[in-house]
Amino acid sequence: MPSRDQVHYFGAGPAPLPTPVLEEASKVLLNYNDSGVGITEISHRSPDANAILAHTQSCLRKLLDIPESDGPDGYQIMFLQGGGSGEFSAVVYHMVSLWLARLTTRKQQGLDNEVQKMKLDYLVTGSWSLKASQEAARLVGSEHVNVVTDSRKHNDGKFGVIPSQDSWTPTNHADDVALTYYCDNETVDGVEFPSAPDGPNLVADMSSNFLSRPVDVRKHVAIFGGAQKNVGTTGITIAIVSNSILPPHAGMADSKLLRKLGLPVGPIVLDWPTIAKNNSLYNTLPIFDVWIAGQVMQRLLDQSPEDQSPRIATQAAESNKKADMLYSILDSSDVYSVVPDKSVRSRMNICLRIKGGDAEAEKAFLKGAESRGLLGLKGHRSVGGIRISNYNAVPVAAAEKLAQYLKDFAKEQEG
Amino acid sequence: MPSRDQVHYFGAGPAPLPTPVLEEASKVLLNYNDSGVGITEISHRSPDANAILAHTQSCLRKLLDIPESDGPDGYQIMFLQGGGSGEFSAVVYHMVSLWLARLTTRKQQGLDNEVQKMKLDYLVTGSWSLKASQEAARLVGSEHVNVVTDSRKHNDGKFGVIPSQDSWTPTNHADDVALTYYCDNETVDGVEFPSAPDGPNLVADMSSNFLSRPVDVRKHVAIFGGAQKNVGTTGITIAIVSNSILPPHAGMADSKLLRKLGLPVGPIVLDWPTIAKNNSLYNTLPIFDVWIAGQVMQRLLDQSPEDQSPRIATQAAESNKKADMLYSILDSSDVYSVVPDKSVRSRMNICLRIKGGDAEAEKAFLKGAESRGLLGLKGHRSVGGIRISNYNAVPVAAAEKLAQYLKDFAKEQEG
Repeated sequence: MPSRDQVHYFGAGPAPLPTPVLEEASKVLLNYNDSGVGITEISHRSPDANAILAHTQSCLRKLLDIPESDGPDGYQIMFLQGGGSGEFSAVVYHMVSLWLARLTTRKQQGLDNEVQKMKLDYLVTGSWSLKASQEAARLVGSEHVNVVTDSRKHNDGKFGVIPSQDSWTPTNHADDVALTYYCDNETVDGVEFPSAPDGPNLVADMSSNFLSRPVDVRKHVAIFGGAQKNVGTTGITIAIVSNSILPPHAGMADSKLLRKLGLPVGPIVLDWPTIAKNNSLYNTLPIFDVWIAGQVMQRLLDQSPEDQSPRIATQAAESNKKADMLYSILDSSDVYSVVPDKSVRSRMNICLRIKGGDAEAEKAFLKGAESRGLLGLKGHRSVGGIRISNYNAVPVAAAEKLAQYLKDFAKEQEG
Repeated sequence: MPSRDQVHYFGAGPAPLPTPVLEEASKVLLNYNDSGVGITEISHRSPDANAILAHTQSCLRKLLDIPESDGPDGYQIMFLQGGGSGEFSAVVYHMVSLWLARLTTRKQQGLDNEVQKMKLDYLVTGSWSLKASQEAARLVGSEHVNVVTDSRKHNDGKFGVIPSQDSWTPTNHADDVALTYYCDNETVDGVEFPSAPDGPNLVADMSSNFLSRPVDVRKHVAIFGGAQKNVGTTGITIAIVSNSILPPHAGMADSKLLRKLGLPVGPIVLDWPTIAKNNSLYNTLPIFDVWIAGQVMQRLLDQSPEDQSPRIATQAAESNKKADMLYSILDSSDVYSVVPDKSVRSRMNICLRIKGGDAEAEKAFLKGAESRGLLGLKGHRSVGGIRISNYNAVPVAAAEKLAQYLKDFAKEQEG
């Protein structure tokens, strides 16, 4: 029966949260802001709920240096439900509708033929971008999905690299491209983009490395992520969306025309223009989850210098330091082999094999880890092996304890 | 700065939760099941998470006497994200796909023409069923939406009645009907169906009266509800879906055919067959919210006799008693007028006006209530007035305190 401080949790998501945030959460569950009413009970339209929403948005703007919400250069910060997987669909519904609306400003006739040219460009660099591309194919038809690159074709059928850009096959004409999609950090495969790729209408899934490093927000039309890794709890998804792709700065196709052309119409709860217009309060928002995210973000702000831009740089330095320490131990012993290529190693999800994937050795590793209170280290069921998730709420001390175990285990195996 | 026991909250949703559940929740947030890891942090694929899911499903089956999950007569219990509004769309995507699959077993040719006949029958008896019907029209086109009844046409343009069935205009041929939709309890308008209506492929939104009375589950192909009223917290939506409309017992149309015929393809996270097949774990499920619902349900079971069927009857009796007490006071004074017709008064949301809607008097009522710690009594912003939400977690003592205030206020106004 371990207590919280006897255990270090390295699960891939849901991820650990800072203990002080959970301690405060356990109080507000019963009585929020001395109202006599708990935080899950208050109305999502109450002044308290609005203040929580505004606080979380404001923290995120500061952390990632997100342009303010007004004007065509601004960005909206939205909270939705349905997780990253929900946004796999939302981006398709939205960007296809936007693409069609733009098309109709150029052409009024022969839309049936013009629509054939529409392409959704996907960079498939791991399990999640693959899933996203499959969802796009389900929604619009595989003939509209252009796989710009598939890492597996360059790595013996497995993920683990990001092929060089000169091998990519993006759609020729930018006008045809409804979106260029990538997953910034692949949780299952331990692959992270060193920096954002190029492409028209760039959309990023940052579910598993959100708030772990500075982001070139302005390069993207949309960035989204489930909150349950670095940001907070399962239950909300954050979307940062450029005003340039939202009304009134951009037109959207009407649902009748979409249907007529065989294009999909999404559910209202995933409709970005509706969510933006209602400041995430189109329907009941899980305010508790928004509050948790706000508390986590406030801590990141508190630990970073006020004149630093972006404020997330402080956390980024800590994340890098923890990851570097762990990778350097893994590299120094033949017992361990890191799965992805050195050039694209994730700082968030460190995927490795022991003795080239020896089942007994990996089992022994997990058992030994557990006896030291080091939990959540099993690799994703689809790939096996070991995965160390190095999210923000993993303290340096926990990473150090794990580092020591990695050294001890290697010594034991070598000796 | 009131404490929790100095306040009685009558908000329409999110709704109050039993204090003992919140007290336990505040513990498990930090350490679940003596694992050293908090409940929002554990993996949704862990044995602990699976046990939580199974417990909540099992409680719900007992409470509502839901047929077991196996076989064509069984029902699945699913947890989704996106709230009731998300299910407005999910039911359309699903029932339209099902309708088309059934059509293709009868006809292979001229599907374009056959599809014109498809109808979605909606009973519009309040703000939420109206919204659901509008979402259906957005997704499939208004030409496919048949409003079987619109209460406003029978009540001077306002909701507040359920017209007698002989005035309804259901679609003639049952084969053409993709679904018959109703909202069992209209939160905004205070209207509740005395019993389930008739119609092919019956679907019910029970968001605001879930777990407040016995339900004829077998009469429905699907029942859904957001959890944040009687059941738990915002963040999960519960769907009870008949195996008869799910694979392998029912075929679904493929997305290509749907698109070709101008019918909508929904997002994977709202796809009932996918969610059912994965026992609600297709993507990360907010296990904390499922746990809360399970705790609330367990309390309902604990307070009801084991040989009673359905077990919810005990809570139903209490709900009725509280509602009867409040309505009888409202009926006994001219100061109050209950908004909906007596035949369809909701036991959950008691909507009233004071002095026929006198703004000053209603303001005074709310102010006086607040001074007694009676909160959350303001009517929905779209209709104004006063609304007493009498959900399960409103204790009899709170209802009695409110009853006393209703009497005192009336006396003061009359005198």
